[in-house]
Amino acid sequence: MCQCFCKMKRAIVIVALFLAGCHAQYQPNWDSIDSRPLPSWYDQAKFGIFMHWGVYSVPSYGGGQDGAHAAGEWFWNDWKSNQTWAVNFMKRTRLPSFTYPDFAPEFKAEFFQPDDWADLFKAAGAQYVVLTSKHHEGWTNWPSKTSWNWNAMDEGPHMDLVDALAKSIRSRTAIHFGLYFSLFEWFNPLYLSDKQNKFATRDYVEEVCRPQLEEIVNTYMPEVIWSDGDWEAPYTYWNSTGFLAWLYNNSPVKDTVVVNDRWGSGMACHHGGYFTCSDRYSPGVLQKHKWENAMTVDKYSWGHRREATMADMLSPSELITQLVITVSCGGNMLMNVGPTHDGRIIPIFEERLMQMGSWLKTNGEAIYNTTHWAYQNDTVNSDVWYTYRPDTKAVYGTLLKFPNDYKMTLGAVKTSSSTKISLLGAGEVKWSTSGATVVITFPYLPLNTPLQWAWSFKFENISPT
Amino acid sequence: MCQCFCKMKRAIVIVALFLAGCHAQYQPNWDSIDSRPLPSWYDQAKFGIFMHWGVYSVPSYGGGQDGAHAAGEWFWNDWKSNQTWAVNFMKRTRLPSFTYPDFAPEFKAEFFQPDDWADLFKAAGAQYVVLTSKHHEGWTNWPSKTSWNWNAMDEGPHMDLVDALAKSIRSRTAIHFGLYFSLFEWFNPLYLSDKQNKFATRDYVEEVCRPQLEEIVNTYMPEVIWSDGDWEAPYTYWNSTGFLAWLYNNSPVKDTVVVNDRWGSGMACHHGGYFTCSDRYSPGVLQKHKWENAMTVDKYSWGHRREATMADMLSPSELITQLVITVSCGGNMLMNVGPTHDGRIIPIFEERLMQMGSWLKTNGEAIYNTTHWAYQNDTVNSDVWYTYRPDTKAVYGTLLKFPNDYKMTLGAVKTSSSTKISLLGAGEVKWSTSGATVVITFPYLPLNTPLQWAWSFKFENISPT
Amino acid sequence: MCQCFCKMKRAIVIVALFLAGCHAQYQPNWDSIDSRPLPSWYDQAKFGIFMHWGVYSVPSYGGGQDGAHAAGEWFWNDWKSNQTWAVNFMKRTRLPSFTYPDFAPEFKAEFFQPDDWADLFKAAGAQYVVLTSKHHEGWTNWPSKTSWNWNAMDEGPHMDLVDALAKSIRSRTAIHFGLYFSLFEWFNPLYLSDKQNKFATRDYVEEVCRPQLEEIVNTYMPEVIWSDGDWEAPYTYWNSTGFLAWLYNNSPVKDTVVVNDRWGSGMACHHGGYFTCSDRYSPGVLQKHKWENAMTVDKYSWGHRREATMADMLSPSELITQLVITVSCGGNMLMNVGPTHDGRIIPIFEERLMQMGSWLKTNGEAIYNTTHWAYQNDTVNSDVWYTYRPDTKAVYGTLLKFPNDYKMTLGAVKTSSSTKISLLGAGEVKWSTSGATVVITFPYLPLNTPLQWAWSFKFENISPT
Amino acid sequence: MCQCFCKMKRAIVIVALFLAGCHAQYQPNWDSIDSRPLPSWYDQAKFGIFMHWGVYSVPSYGGGQDGAHAAGEWFWNDWKSNQTWAVNFMKRTRLPSFTYPDFAPEFKAEFFQPDDWADLFKAAGAQYVVLTSKHHEGWTNWPSKTSWNWNAMDEGPHMDLVDALAKSIRSRTAIHFGLYFSLFEWFNPLYLSDKQNKFATRDYVEEVCRPQLEEIVNTYMPEVIWSDGDWEAPYTYWNSTGFLAWLYNNSPVKDTVVVNDRWGSGMACHHGGYFTCSDRYSPGVLQKHKWENAMTVDKYSWGHRREATMADMLSPSELITQLVITVSCGGNMLMNVGPTHDGRIIPIFEERLMQMGSWLKTNGEAIYNTTHWAYQNDTVNSDVWYTYRPDTKAVYGTLLKFPNDYKMTLGAVKTSSSTKISLLGAGEVKWSTSGATVVITFPYLPLNTPLQWAWSFKFENISPT
Repeated sequence: MCQCFCKMKRAIVIVALFLAGCHAQYQPNWDSIDSRPLPSWYDQAKFGIFMHWGVYSVPSYGGGQDGAHAAGEWFWNDWKSNQTWAVNFMKRTRLPSFTYPDFAPEFKAEFFQPDDWADLFKAAGAQYVVLTSKHHEGWTNWPSKTSWNWNAMDEGPHMDLVDALAKSIRSRTAIHFGLYFSLFEWFNPLYLSDKQNKFATRDYVEEVCRPQLEEIVNTYMPEVIWSDGDWEAPYTYWNSTGFLAWLYNNSPVKDTVVVNDRWGSGMACHHGGYFTCSDRYSPGVLQKHKWENAMTVDKYSWGHRREATMADMLSPSELITQLVITVSCGGNMLMNVGPTHDGRIIPIFEERLMQMGSWLKTNGEAIYNTTHWAYQNDTVNSDVWYTYRPDTKAVYGTLLKFPNDYKMTLGAVKTSSSTKISLLGAGEVKWSTSGATVVITFPYLPLNTPLQWAWSFKFENISPT
Repeated sequence: MCQCFCKMKRAIVIVALFLAGCHAQYQPNWDSIDSRPLPSWYDQAKFGIFMHWGVYSVPSYGGGQDGAHAAGEWFWNDWKSNQTWAVNFMKRTRLPSFTYPDFAPEFKAEFFQPDDWADLFKAAGAQYVVLTSKHHEGWTNWPSKTSWNWNAMDEGPHMDLVDALAKSIRSRTAIHFGLYFSLFEWFNPLYLSDKQNKFATRDYVEEVCRPQLEEIVNTYMPEVIWSDGDWEAPYTYWNSTGFLAWLYNNSPVKDTVVVNDRWGSGMACHHGGYFTCSDRYSPGVLQKHKWENAMTVDKYSWGHRREATMADMLSPSELITQLVITVSCGGNMLMNVGPTHDGRIIPIFEERLMQMGSWLKTNGEAIYNTTHWAYQNDTVNSDVWYTYRPDTKAVYGTLLKFPNDYKMTLGAVKTSSSTKISLLGAGEVKWSTSGATVVITFPYLPLNTPLQWAWSFKFENISPT
Repeated sequence: MCQCFCKMKRAIVIVALFLAGCHAQYQPNWDSIDSRPLPSWYDQAKFGIFMHWGVYSVPSYGGGQDGAHAAGEWFWNDWKSNQTWAVNFMKRTRLPSFTYPDFAPEFKAEFFQPDDWADLFKAAGAQYVVLTSKHHEGWTNWPSKTSWNWNAMDEGPHMDLVDALAKSIRSRTAIHFGLYFSLFEWFNPLYLSDKQNKFATRDYVEEVCRPQLEEIVNTYMPEVIWSDGDWEAPYTYWNSTGFLAWLYNNSPVKDTVVVNDRWGSGMACHHGGYFTCSDRYSPGVLQKHKWENAMTVDKYSWGHRREATMADMLSPSELITQLVITVSCGGNMLMNVGPTHDGRIIPIFEERLMQMGSWLKTNGEAIYNTTHWAYQNDTVNSDVWYTYRPDTKAVYGTLLKFPNDYKMTLGAVKTSSSTKISLLGAGEVKWSTSGATVVITFPYLPLNTPLQWAWSFKFENISPT
Repeated sequence: MCQCFCKMKRAIVIVALFLAGCHAQYQPNWDSIDSRPLPSWYDQAKFGIFMHWGVYSVPSYGGGQDGAHAAGEWFWNDWKSNQTWAVNFMKRTRLPSFTYPDFAPEFKAEFFQPDDWADLFKAAGAQYVVLTSKHHEGWTNWPSKTSWNWNAMDEGPHMDLVDALAKSIRSRTAIHFGLYFSLFEWFNPLYLSDKQNKFATRDYVEEVCRPQLEEIVNTYMPEVIWSDGDWEAPYTYWNSTGFLAWLYNNSPVKDTVVVNDRWGSGMACHHGGYFTCSDRYSPGVLQKHKWENAMTVDKYSWGHRREATMADMLSPSELITQLVITVSCGGNMLMNVGPTHDGRIIPIFEERLMQMGSWLKTNGEAIYNTTHWAYQNDTVNSDVWYTYRPDTKAVYGTLLKFPNDYKMTLGAVKTSSSTKISLLGAGEVKWSTSGATVVITFPYLPLNTPLQWAWSFKFENISPT
């Protein structure tokens, strides 16, 4: 009897959704969803800050002390999968009866100062911020109706972290506010039950996942939805196209929101909004579809790891190199820093953020609001990467490796008598041609110049070779 | 658009439920539900043990120290309703940011010995046991799929408490195992949302309440379902008749299960299985419908209160008085003891249980398997209460107050020459008639006799006056 | 060089002490100390309450759950001596790195109501109370200058427990207030060092033990000093005679204080004030020297044990039996109840205390202010124990076992025509002589009479046979 | 009577000490103590690491969040002195009844890797390390016999932290190991009692302070004793000269140990070993007596402060500037980093340490084993600071500010034809004379050269002007 009823119910749902969709702009299918143009702010932004913050910020451990380099935010899963380093850590520091939810009361965020974070992100030159509203652990950083007693208001911080950060960012900066959201939850019994049923049932999606997505959209109006945790089930299980149709047609952020591509097994790099493909995706060549390089300052982890040392941190040079190549190839860079359980962005992350801001203050002209150029990197000097500003028609070439002889030879640039070349932060530079190449001479700047790490040249009145 | 779909969906549900019910014995309406005969074990059992155990066992406080006498298991509600004593207690012992779920890790049950409990309940003469599977706080003592991270397996004891106790009771005793279940949850956001919608929505029932009822029935096969927390909403919101129809027709306990009467506002004392009417219900006169006196050893609380003193405890005399009157009037007595957060039944409760067992060992013949008699209490000596055993046709009169002159005069008993009167535990006694009354002479027993508190006389070959 | 200096220093000390003593009443030697008469209040008091309360009240465990029956207050020692039950308990409930001092923050005493305790002790009929100021663990229940950060003011309760209880008892009752004090401390490094030196050094005594004894005497003016933990070292190490000479000559309690006999190896039962000999000492025959039966309601432990069940508790009959025999043989009974870490005397102990008080209310005349009689127990009925009141010349015989035939035959009592015999609480009783014996007939009291457990008869105008 | 004895005792002590001293090299008076030559390793070492680690590492807070900038290790004192920021912090994060010792169990040091610390200090170019054995809170990082239950073995880390670090440093590096020791303890009741007696009594020194100093010297054989907390009492109270005489004559480190100058009120900058004068002492001119600039990477605190941000951290340039000026003026620099309660040196501190090591790798030749030169800083370019190596007779001038025109003019250097000038890390440089000055031309190094922050020139065959 139930079978019969369930089929009827499912048929009704399909009919209803069809009716719901038929008068709307976007239909719940990929052709329609993919046809939506990406809101322009996103491509212009280029540089965002990613933050992974949750109950995993309490153990804050990825095994580094034992030689492993696991991502801290996967702690629960790694422990329950019997990763030796995680099992040993728990043996050493917690009782046999301890379970992961017992960490929650220690996630106190007592030092959380969202205004300071907002100011720091602005100083870093970030144009958007993406915070984990919920990671695979299922804990919600907002008081979700469907995650009672497993969220930041009922336990731990006893505060709506999503709201607090959104308010600070919006009141103090022009930064776009976005939210990461994990579709699945490793250990949610409703999800596990659906999974055991090979996703023939959808209780978890109907009772938890979809209501939560609507909660965060309606309450916090994020301009990015950074979906994740999609890979175990097809998009039909998640009803991703249904959600996206609602998001694009009816939600309060339908005009400005951007989403990524993690909406079901096999979807990444193929459907949705911009493409993230895989973590730390950085193809090094121009991509046809708008994409994002989501990466981390701590090489090994998105969540804060207490045991991380300087050997695990990307240097300013490495970070700027990633940004320059990413932007040249049409991507955005979303750089992750993991806050601590007591609500801090540790000084080394603050330093890196300020170093990014310092570099972008001088060189941001070569990054923000640019598009790719005819060439991505130079034909002679492969350490020079190009961008182009449609508004001024200027070309920018950023050099990643300083030449010992203070000379830089370029093959992609065709000069003329009206050509003007300048080093951002230092003014016009001397150049000459040599055959088909242009030879630029660096000015002698004091060794303690703030122009460090990478040097952006602006080319006016040139054309590609 | 959604409205339209929702109505259709609701219509389908109604049709489906109708179809589901039409071939079954019991229909989802009170006439049909109420028509089911109560399984006979329940009326014969007479005496059960009730246990309230949950996260409230951690604060374990009902304000006694501050002069209040609140029930400990209502702590969360009383605190959030700004009861001074609860607010002060929290100020004194916990941080400002502390929330009720933060108590959960301290509910460790490290001393829980279910085998010892089973043995103790048996020694107490109990025929059934009812444990709170879930109280109004929403915490489930079993790992419910719909109460993730708010149950005894995920947090606190890290054990399936319901299963552990059920196993011990079933393997060591013939005691019937039952479960208390709170329909509502004070602070479940889904329930609060339904309530705000004046119960026009039923998300909480469909996603939490009903799935949980089926979980406990299918998993632990309780022989009592002691429903509670029903009063804010009509039975149609809870779909109580739907659940009971399923329980009586299709569940694994359909033949033996008994339920009470708390299935929706206005239902108590009117519909369901046996009647509990109100807490500590003890009408003192015969009832037409089978009923239960659910009461507590600690006068003021169902959950353990640490501050309870001897002044708060019922004496053995008071407990036996309740049992005797209750059984005479056709009721069962369900006597509550609240275990501690560390898993113990404290010694004073153990002593009371053993005192009950000691009394029942001698006098149980006047209690178990009896029915009411022509009279409930005697027409001359109102401290004598009668029962009747259909199998042996014996009448029992239990005296609650010892006569200083060792003489007891009864008006309800009509003797004949074949009449035989004996004191349970002491043998035949001398008696004579005086007009329409019978005068019984107590034997001189040593002052340290185990026959204490109340004295049951057995009458053979008598008839009512 | 140091050796020379140390000898000189020691010589000076001896000279100084000699000078200190030479003008005083009591000299620092046993002959002199033992010659002091015991202040009379103590012998008249007969019944006191003993309380063991300390950090051990947090684990509150003596292994009962694992079949052991260790005293809870010895937990630290038993754990460190690798008693399996203690090791297992710690493995199960605490981290590997946990040490005993880590229990201290949980000793919160948040329910401690010293006024209620005082009222309860008064209701129990106690004439003196002895609280552990410090047990072998070294933790002091007062803020000792020489136990910094290991006392009840700096940690745990954050309260001067000794002061609080002393104040309540003195302001609300006439009960005498006394203090238990452990001379040694299992793990104090200064003591361990002296011990390793075979007590040739005395750093611990000079820097910790003696200063503390003076602190408690001067600050709280206890009328009992219940010394313990003396047995590993000779009294010369403790300088017990020196301390007692100071206590008897110069302290603020020199006129009223009583002490026991645990002042060095081999001293118990031989020197000091009253004799305690061994724990639960109850010789059953008259003693020449005033003595005390220090015993426990929980058969196995002085500190509270959470796992204690009714099987471990002495019944009212057993407690009264102990009291009656003890007093007949010239002793006092000091009955121990162990409070909980949260500051409560649990209900079963409260009940026992009130049962003692209830019995003493009627029968106290046969106990308080009495001395031993010519006979301790009767020559014919060994369940009758005698006392004598010098003020009224009345003899009291207390019966411990009720006679089934309501007749009691005594051999020690020689009656005359002026003899009067009454049952306390019930008035004069019938008696006759039969040869050299007296036969007393019990009155028929209602079975629910408050005269329970033991029955004291008052004999006026009799002489011993 | 006691007064008399005490005077006798004191006289004996004086005699004894006199006898003790009379055959030894150093007498317990400042003339003798000050006459000891400083072991040579210390002056050659130049650069050391200071570490403040204790229970204060748990709150790890100096009020920065509230606008204050207190030193984290003074938390207890600041809180008890009612500093608003500290009081508020405690109100917000702890219970009213919380006391400072309650922090101890959270000082777990679970990430402490002493081998990694040793390797890091070596990489930083440090020649000595000074760890707080005990700060003003009284907590000892070793298991002191006179600080029972208030030390790192009995509580918190449950480890001998002093031993662990000493072993790692000695087995993996040639770094000298030293210990900081606070003479006084803010809240030790014995000290407070002596203080109340205006230091006429010395119980604290005799029973706690002096025994501890001997414990650390005899057990860990430190090569630096960095005394502190001396200022409230005269050196006679501390018996500092007595201790130093013992240290210099009889201790196991008598040949190599160095001490500072904080040995009693008015002693700093006047007596003892090297002079520290005041915290962050940096006179900027040559000192006659060997001295030390003890300073911090976090400008405001010696103990770790969680709320410290980049604005509070000295930059590499600032740190190197301090080192260069300090060494030129005859001092050593002791640079402090405060570890965390969980046993880590946070990444920003690690980065600073490695930056120091990176700079010293190239420029250490101008620092280690040098002495002051005829000039400390140059007569023309005040950003150049000189040192001198007696072994090679080379002079070194370190430039702190890069000249925009790549030219540096010096007035203190008198060249000749055999003069050779080179830039450390880059080889010989061009120079010329101009009147009495020398003009050095910087080579054009790539902008990403590792030669950063400050540039050391080596002068061979020159003399001072």
